[in-house]
Amino acid sequence: MRGFLFSYSGKNLRGGEKHSVPPARKEIRMKTFETYEKMLDNKQYHALRGELIDENPADIAGLIENIPVDKAVLIFRMLPKDMEAEVFADLFPDVQKELIGKLSETEIQLIMEELFLDDAVDFIEEMPATVAKKILANAKPETREEINRLLKYPEDSAGSIMTVEYVDLKSEMTVREAFERIRKTGTDKETIYTCYVTDSERKLKGIVSAKTLMLAERDEIIGEIMEEANLIIAETLEDREEIAHRFNKYDLLSIPVVDSEKRLVGIITVDDIADVIQEEATEDFQKMAAILPSDKPYLKTTPIILARNRIVWLLVLMIAAMITGSILDYYETAIAVVPLLVTFIPMLMDTGGNSGSQSATMVIRGMALAEITPRDFFKVVWKEMRTGFLVGCGLSAVNFIRVWFFYRNRVEFGGEILMISAVVSFTLLFTVMAANLIGGILPIIAKKCKIDPAVMAAPLITTIVDAGSLLVFFALSTALLM
Amino acid sequence: MRGFLFSYSGKNLRGGEKHSVPPARKEIRMKTFETYEKMLDNKQYHALRGELIDENPADIAGLIENIPVDKAVLIFRMLPKDMEAEVFADLFPDVQKELIGKLSETEIQLIMEELFLDDAVDFIEEMPATVAKKILANAKPETREEINRLLKYPEDSAGSIMTVEYVDLKSEMTVREAFERIRKTGTDKETIYTCYVTDSERKLKGIVSAKTLMLAERDEIIGEIMEEANLIIAETLEDREEIAHRFNKYDLLSIPVVDSEKRLVGIITVDDIADVIQEEATEDFQKMAAILPSDKPYLKTTPIILARNRIVWLLVLMIAAMITGSILDYYETAIAVVPLLVTFIPMLMDTGGNSGSQSATMVIRGMALAEITPRDFFKVVWKEMRTGFLVGCGLSAVNFIRVWFFYRNRVEFGGEILMISAVVSFTLLFTVMAANLIGGILPIIAKKCKIDPAVMAAPLITTIVDAGSLLVFFALSTALLM
Repeated sequence: MRGFLFSYSGKNLRGGEKHSVPPARKEIRMKTFETYEKMLDNKQYHALRGELIDENPADIAGLIENIPVDKAVLIFRMLPKDMEAEVFADLFPDVQKELIGKLSETEIQLIMEELFLDDAVDFIEEMPATVAKKILANAKPETREEINRLLKYPEDSAGSIMTVEYVDLKSEMTVREAFERIRKTGTDKETIYTCYVTDSERKLKGIVSAKTLMLAERDEIIGEIMEEANLIIAETLEDREEIAHRFNKYDLLSIPVVDSEKRLVGIITVDDIADVIQEEATEDFQKMAAILPSDKPYLKTTPIILARNRIVWLLVLMIAAMITGSILDYYETAIAVVPLLVTFIPMLMDTGGNSGSQSATMVIRGMALAEITPRDFFKVVWKEMRTGFLVGCGLSAVNFIRVWFFYRNRVEFGGEILMISAVVSFTLLFTVMAANLIGGILPIIAKKCKIDPAVMAAPLITTIVDAGSLLVFFALSTALLM
Repeated sequence: MRGFLFSYSGKNLRGGEKHSVPPARKEIRMKTFETYEKMLDNKQYHALRGELIDENPADIAGLIENIPVDKAVLIFRMLPKDMEAEVFADLFPDVQKELIGKLSETEIQLIMEELFLDDAVDFIEEMPATVAKKILANAKPETREEINRLLKYPEDSAGSIMTVEYVDLKSEMTVREAFERIRKTGTDKETIYTCYVTDSERKLKGIVSAKTLMLAERDEIIGEIMEEANLIIAETLEDREEIAHRFNKYDLLSIPVVDSEKRLVGIITVDDIADVIQEEATEDFQKMAAILPSDKPYLKTTPIILARNRIVWLLVLMIAAMITGSILDYYETAIAVVPLLVTFIPMLMDTGGNSGSQSATMVIRGMALAEITPRDFFKVVWKEMRTGFLVGCGLSAVNFIRVWFFYRNRVEFGGEILMISAVVSFTLLFTVMAANLIGGILPIIAKKCKIDPAVMAAPLITTIVDAGSLLVFFALSTALLM
């Protein structure tokens, strides 16, 4: 159902009820998978092969992941050689490993030769050392050398996600010659839509897009139509998240990667960048929830690993919370005199934790998207102080009224209830302001100290704010109520 | 500095110290910006224009955003017409609005004609109603009609992010004719790397990539080289997040968008999908931190708006925490008898909240990435129960020892301290297990009920778990210690 009316209403110009969504592709697929498995069971190999050739490699990978490995091998062997590699690259590492166990050495070698080098490296990295060794031993020497070279780049660097299969042209070629070169070598390249012009020392001279080539005259010279000023490049050791920002900013399809001597050593394509964006966001989600990050899908992770990833921070934070608890031990007398004070603890702790996590989340995410840099420190401080003040005043007002309203008739307090309301509300204002400020600045300080800002998130801030909040609360209570 | 050694050590095959990163491009840029501003002040218009033409539109947008609007207009007017539109599309909405205020109606009309239609729609949507009306009134009738048509698609639908500038071919064309068509119309298309083959009713018949065209012979027929089986398509009303998954799964550069009658109405390109991925992740981060989502960058948002987005959930959660607090009021006598009990409250609350937020985060993120579906409900339950048991046992053991160790010599408890340790540790085990379970299943239930799972995150779960945890703690304490 579509939105009907086109009304001007400031920001939200779209018409619209919530739209109904067509049946998800995944469910349609699932049915086809069953059909294929049945065809396999009925030994209709020829017909099945015909169907598979028309399928998308990513869907065949889905099929292979969802049937027993013995059948998976049969399906896999039915595929044309070039499709085999594409399907293989799309499989989960566990399934890759299982499959490798069932294939002959020649078959493995063939796959390794057909894989794009970045996919081969990803695969090797995920295998246990013994398997990786065996596969590398079976690969052709040039392939092995290339893989080893790529494996040396540090994790999360541009070098670690680049591939070396790109189209390189020379500046003295004509467009016609460039097309010939693309036609001759293009099938094995990860992209042919951006071509890289290098000199005899393999230094990057310019970039020419397939669009430019297609719109140019056949006898124009590459050196004259290529872009050469302000080229957007990556260096092998840059962080892959930086590269992702560059893709977003300049709407790139691929980026050339150069070494410290400005020689072109590879390219990164946009499909790998989409994965980087997702993985980095997932990592941040996990860190911000005090989980050791892991890129393994949840359903494929055993409870033991899940527990290990979670317990580390929980232990640290539990011990910190015990310290907070001992503040209460210290103010035992105050609690004995006014037991009502205890009932405000959950509210103060939760609100402080939530406020801190709000500002930390905004700042951490802003830094991940490069919208906030450490240079903006004072802007963040000033913004959080004002925001914290507004939020704190709002919450305190509500709180003052509710405490007074609920407890005004309780005999044991008498006239003191207004004072108790005031103490609770003031503590709340302090807590929210402190939480906002700490939540806003800790991630920036972490970044300055080269610590990942995401680990400064909610849980840690909660713990700090809790302690401060309870200290203020009991200090005030003792001073004003006893 | 690069990693040196290539060692086999299981998963982590990369050599490596933390790599040093080359100076960020942004900082280099900032210097150039100053140079450009100086050239402007010195009226070196001709030289400046020459420099700007070689710059990337995204960088010029950065320059314009960082100088006063009067200078920005001068810079903007120096640009060639086609570059003007590209730069304009890259600006923040605020700056777009400011700039529009300084430009003549003819200039605005020219920009509207040059903008890709999806960018024009994005821009119109961000403008206040009066400005939008004026701009549309000045646009050419066809442009206005197209924009109005696109504005009707619901927010976050495929239709709302598509553009209509694509290359369409006919199946009876030869490759040569296709190239001619691309050369004639290609400059104004958002991508020429995937061409769409339609019939006389504009129904999508097939897809042919520029790669296929470039590798084919000149006299081959499009109908024979195009892909036509299992085309990957989007429907206008599908959610944009679904489309993003499809881009990731199939490594697409663009996707055709069809209406309910299967007519091709537009395409979505990968650069817009990268934005979708980032925005959806940002939205989830905000929701999970109990903030009303907003796509405005943090530094561009006023404290009043920030406070409004934060206070709504804080109020709800504060009131919920007050209910938790009243549990403590109810058990006032128990606290009076054993005041030590109060000191365990922060630890129980924090650990429960953190555990719940851990499992909620894993499940919410898994669902956002389509790795977990509501069908996996029982898998999640079983996994969380085991994980919760493992984590809970670990934490409880540590806790038992520490409580016994710290308080064993406190006279007031005597032999009871072992019992207190046991009660606290058992409550902790219960809390962690409950938190894991609730954190894992609430997001799935939300999704089933068509509520966004991300709002079921940490804060809400914390509040539920807190109440349960304190109830168990005091029920047990009263039963066993009094």
